[in-house]
Amino acid sequence: MKNDLEPFFNPKGVAIVGASTNPAKLSYGIVRNLSQFGYKGKIYPVNPSAEKIMNLKCFPAIQAVPDPLDLAILILPAPAIPQLLEDCGKRGIKAATIISGGFREIGTNGLALENECLRIAKTFQMRVIGPNCVGTMNMGNGLDTTFIQGMPSIGGIGFISQSGAVCGGIVDHVVKKNIGFSHLISLGNEADVNETDMIEYLGQDQQTRVIAVYVESIRDGRRFLEVGKEVGRIKPIIILKAGRTSSGAKAVSSHTGSLAGSQAAYSTAFRQAGMIEVNSLEEMLNIALVLDLSPVPKGNRVAIITNAGGPAALASDHLADNNIILAELSSTTKQELRERLNPSAQVENPIDMLGGAGADEYEFALKEVLMDPEVDIAVPILVPQALVNPAEVANAIVNQVNHAKKPVITCFMGLESIVEAREILVDNKIPMLDYPEKLGRPIGSLFQRIENPDEITTIEKTTRILFDNKKIAAWFKKFDHQEVMGEYETRSLFDAMGIPVVAGDFAPDLKTAQQIAERIRYPVVLKIVSPQILHKSEIKGVALNIGDEKELNTAWNSIAKQIQAKNSNAHILGFMVEKMARPGLEVVIGMKRDPNFGAMLMFGSGGIFVELFKDVAFRFAPINRNDAMEMINETHAKQLLNGFRGQPMADVDALIDNLLRLNELVIENPKIEEIEINPLVMYPLGQGVLALDGRMILS
Amino acid sequence: MKNDLEPFFNPKGVAIVGASTNPAKLSYGIVRNLSQFGYKGKIYPVNPSAEKIMNLKCFPAIQAVPDPLDLAILILPAPAIPQLLEDCGKRGIKAATIISGGFREIGTNGLALENECLRIAKTFQMRVIGPNCVGTMNMGNGLDTTFIQGMPSIGGIGFISQSGAVCGGIVDHVVKKNIGFSHLISLGNEADVNETDMIEYLGQDQQTRVIAVYVESIRDGRRFLEVGKEVGRIKPIIILKAGRTSSGAKAVSSHTGSLAGSQAAYSTAFRQAGMIEVNSLEEMLNIALVLDLSPVPKGNRVAIITNAGGPAALASDHLADNNIILAELSSTTKQELRERLNPSAQVENPIDMLGGAGADEYEFALKEVLMDPEVDIAVPILVPQALVNPAEVANAIVNQVNHAKKPVITCFMGLESIVEAREILVDNKIPMLDYPEKLGRPIGSLFQRIENPDEITTIEKTTRILFDNKKIAAWFKKFDHQEVMGEYETRSLFDAMGIPVVAGDFAPDLKTAQQIAERIRYPVVLKIVSPQILHKSEIKGVALNIGDEKELNTAWNSIAKQIQAKNSNAHILGFMVEKMARPGLEVVIGMKRDPNFGAMLMFGSGGIFVELFKDVAFRFAPINRNDAMEMINETHAKQLLNGFRGQPMADVDALIDNLLRLNELVIENPKIEEIEINPLVMYPLGQGVLALDGRMILS
Repeated sequence: MKNDLEPFFNPKGVAIVGASTNPAKLSYGIVRNLSQFGYKGKIYPVNPSAEKIMNLKCFPAIQAVPDPLDLAILILPAPAIPQLLEDCGKRGIKAATIISGGFREIGTNGLALENECLRIAKTFQMRVIGPNCVGTMNMGNGLDTTFIQGMPSIGGIGFISQSGAVCGGIVDHVVKKNIGFSHLISLGNEADVNETDMIEYLGQDQQTRVIAVYVESIRDGRRFLEVGKEVGRIKPIIILKAGRTSSGAKAVSSHTGSLAGSQAAYSTAFRQAGMIEVNSLEEMLNIALVLDLSPVPKGNRVAIITNAGGPAALASDHLADNNIILAELSSTTKQELRERLNPSAQVENPIDMLGGAGADEYEFALKEVLMDPEVDIAVPILVPQALVNPAEVANAIVNQVNHAKKPVITCFMGLESIVEAREILVDNKIPMLDYPEKLGRPIGSLFQRIENPDEITTIEKTTRILFDNKKIAAWFKKFDHQEVMGEYETRSLFDAMGIPVVAGDFAPDLKTAQQIAERIRYPVVLKIVSPQILHKSEIKGVALNIGDEKELNTAWNSIAKQIQAKNSNAHILGFMVEKMARPGLEVVIGMKRDPNFGAMLMFGSGGIFVELFKDVAFRFAPINRNDAMEMINETHAKQLLNGFRGQPMADVDALIDNLLRLNELVIENPKIEEIEINPLVMYPLGQGVLALDGRMILS
Repeated sequence: MKNDLEPFFNPKGVAIVGASTNPAKLSYGIVRNLSQFGYKGKIYPVNPSAEKIMNLKCFPAIQAVPDPLDLAILILPAPAIPQLLEDCGKRGIKAATIISGGFREIGTNGLALENECLRIAKTFQMRVIGPNCVGTMNMGNGLDTTFIQGMPSIGGIGFISQSGAVCGGIVDHVVKKNIGFSHLISLGNEADVNETDMIEYLGQDQQTRVIAVYVESIRDGRRFLEVGKEVGRIKPIIILKAGRTSSGAKAVSSHTGSLAGSQAAYSTAFRQAGMIEVNSLEEMLNIALVLDLSPVPKGNRVAIITNAGGPAALASDHLADNNIILAELSSTTKQELRERLNPSAQVENPIDMLGGAGADEYEFALKEVLMDPEVDIAVPILVPQALVNPAEVANAIVNQVNHAKKPVITCFMGLESIVEAREILVDNKIPMLDYPEKLGRPIGSLFQRIENPDEITTIEKTTRILFDNKKIAAWFKKFDHQEVMGEYETRSLFDAMGIPVVAGDFAPDLKTAQQIAERIRYPVVLKIVSPQILHKSEIKGVALNIGDEKELNTAWNSIAKQIQAKNSNAHILGFMVEKMARPGLEVVIGMKRDPNFGAMLMFGSGGIFVELFKDVAFRFAPINRNDAMEMINETHAKQLLNGFRGQPMADVDALIDNLLRLNELVIENPKIEEIEINPLVMYPLGQGVLALDGRMILS
């Protein structure tokens, strides 16, 4: 996969087809950018009516361009692009970036044109970036095929964006702040190359230490999830998805012409792939900056060094929100600080050296905390004060950081007076943020990287369950003509899957009901069975705790009568007669198939609370035992199951086992669109679980 | 109140006691700042060993300074301050700002010194700002008693801060961005003047349109709440409290030497006073900027005009998070846009004019949406593109905004290329933010101001309940020697308050228990009564659903035996025997007295879920019927009570009535530290509520 994308970033020669001699045109801008940032390969403007552009010889057509040539940038009106691609293919070019718009994003005609381009590219085994994009940059060799003003300095952030405008906006920000990037890649409509391809490419790239991705939709969810997981093990991936809300999705949809998938599915995929999801561009940049420049800390204990208490308090709040704690400084450190700092200074963490503190104090205190074994991360904060020179403080920090193996993240507040200090810090690869409240998430992300280092290596993709396949096949044979299935049908499926189901059976008439009740023993429950009734309890179609035959008869008649009165269309097939289950803790497990990412397994805490408090967790199948445990731990049910407030511990092992049975079923049976066991009642440790009701939809 | 703070902001003459001739000293900085921003009053440096500072005549002592003189700025070592204050008092000065540190923040000695200062000030009826502060600025008359570099331009934001450093950091930010302020006030240790005084002052100030407050703790919570409510009705108050988390509180505590109250109490007070609580300085500034410069919109429908889809999607997401919806543009508007914009442009909201859009397109589209009756707020977004001049776009926006009565909030992404555009917008009082994701909260706050305009005027402070005071007094007489009270004692109090309590009584022995059960009728409940047992159910001290005398006897003996076995120290007084209550929806109501803000009433949804999901709402007493309703609506219980999933509607009126009874009780009885009814069972509409258990702590 790497090889065929290589020409986009390390071409020996680039042709710009549609290059203009007019400096006001975008295509001229591309020739200018290719020429001005140190790219050493050949640059060939293609324009039949020009001799030279920026002193570069022009060629009348791509066929006329000499070797070496391995990348074509196409920027002519959309209808001309298919022919140009074909010319490129014949010329033996394996990589083309289509800058032009006028494709999928403008409607059906554009989509047809885009598909035609894709077809031609496949014929010649060409890879295509775009159309409707702004090109790419490789800071390592100065290759810039965009028309964006300016180029970021070299650093470790690989930035991938579906929006060209976001690329432009970001460059404008980071050039001034001197934040270093490895690559900047605008993908546009993604007719061929998409974000997953690029994540995979940057995963293998030596210069890239952290990958930042802006997406509006993801097309091949399954591959994204798998590649994301793989790459995420090697380097952090930060992701921002626009269109979380329906308003946002509207904006995206009109923009890229692609449908945004459901947000829960996206967030689940990001979490499952170990990505860092953010919802702000600025936060994405700040996290990327810190992850790029900082070593991985040994733990989550931070020491704050400040000349002002207020900003330190704000920083502490936001660090605590992100699981970073204030280090308990060793007594040696406190002693040293007490001796050398202002006598009124606070030598407990946060170390407040007061407003008069200058470069010497900062350097001394930083040195001390970096030597303290109780400190994993140092955070010097400076607020401009009348008598302090921020640039000197910056230099003092640089002196100490240069021989530290611990992360040092700085916050210099202000704008006007810290310009020089910022330059010094950034030149020395020390991350600097401008408000204390922005420290939390980036430093938290740094720590998150090391939280479970073991888990990163031990990966069993899925925990398989040995089913009685004959039983399951027989069930499908019997029922697969039906689309929607209720309790009656799912009972026997759960049974075939080895999931314990409450005793009971279907009774088409009262006589049978009496026999069933006799067999399974009173007390029993009656539940109406009617294709027209989906939510049995809401229309009072259920009678609980029926103690004897007399009560059974009464319940049967009164429910039937009541339903007929309310909903004369409801055709009553009969009733389920079931053993009244012992009370326990109710939970829900289920699955909904996402068109993009596949089978999304769900676990939720019980009864109406799953809906009311949205206390649910999702994972895409296949899952392993660990994933199942994580799902449970993500919800509040975790506490309920662990013996909350004097309740007995619940049988979590049995719950996990049943989640894995569901996992097994949905992996093997892609026809299942939706399935739910609700409620699944959990009993104390060793006493298992019991499915009381189920629903399923087949495609 | 206003008058005695007036000299701090509009003095006819200011003395700087401790002014140095050395430009490297802070006190010199103050003289410089007083001289350089246009302040027209007299400036008197006081320094016995100097003739002149900055061409201003020096005086040997405060007594020697001529009239007019109504403000003294004191900046000499702490031990000298009490005498100086006394001199000021004798000289007839009514306002002094103490810049010097070395007081409460350094420990007990400092605190004694600070108290001495306060005593002297009171003797002479002087008001004091500080100590340990950086002074104040009044942009309106150019008065600057700080040593901060630079002064913000004139605007409508009044900024109050307990931290001097935060003032300095903010000024450094806003000077460069040209964000306008009315006042900037650093309060330091707040020996006398505190944030409540300043909120009241700025509430009456003509120049101030929005108040922004940074606090670390609030001392006089009750007055803060009352003044906040009053002023909040006239102008918006934005508040940032540092020390939300225990880490943050640690930083604050070491800084100001004051104890941070509990965060729930603070947030409740802020919400109840109608303040906008934020947790970031940058967000505070952005909200203040938008509220200061924008007219109040008629509704929450926004139109986004953009040259790039991605940033519009991000903006839409964050606007939706803040209850701002995308306007459905009128067909006329869409028709006009279709005719004049690029044929590929998106004329549905967000209006995406594509990357080539220039100043003309922005001006035209903005004009159209401002005329559209379906649009309340316009948001032009610009991403720097190669061929667009941001400054021209800014001018185009200015042209339209100048005759619009609708808020126009702009977002120009980037840093490098939008400097000039920013200046144009800011000079024309058009708020500009730098990232689309930052638009949500400020625009949401703008809308929030108009959501319930009626509520702002109809204020009934509390809804009183007529109690049978004799009964309540009798109850207190009987029990007020006890500190902790359980179900037995609280039953009769609830009864006296008119709160329905489940039938039942205390049984010291089995015989009595049998009699009570006979009287109230089976089925009954047994609950252990023992001073050593607080959580009855957790140690299985409760038996439910006892059907007859035989079961009663068994339950009595088995609980007693079991408890003795587990906890031989537990002294069993007897059992409560109560009617088994009909099942219903369980909720909790209660009160905890906050040392700072007073009686904090609580409502929470039921059973273990109140703890697990933290589904609770708070209000400080006194509350009215509206407040009670709001409390319920803040929780998820709202949905449960309103007939969730086929459940009957619950008797919300009865719940409110009982909340108001609790309100009445705790207002009238300050000895009550804590009280809780848990559970309070709610029945369907018209069937009331029933208290099943209670606890109370008296001081």
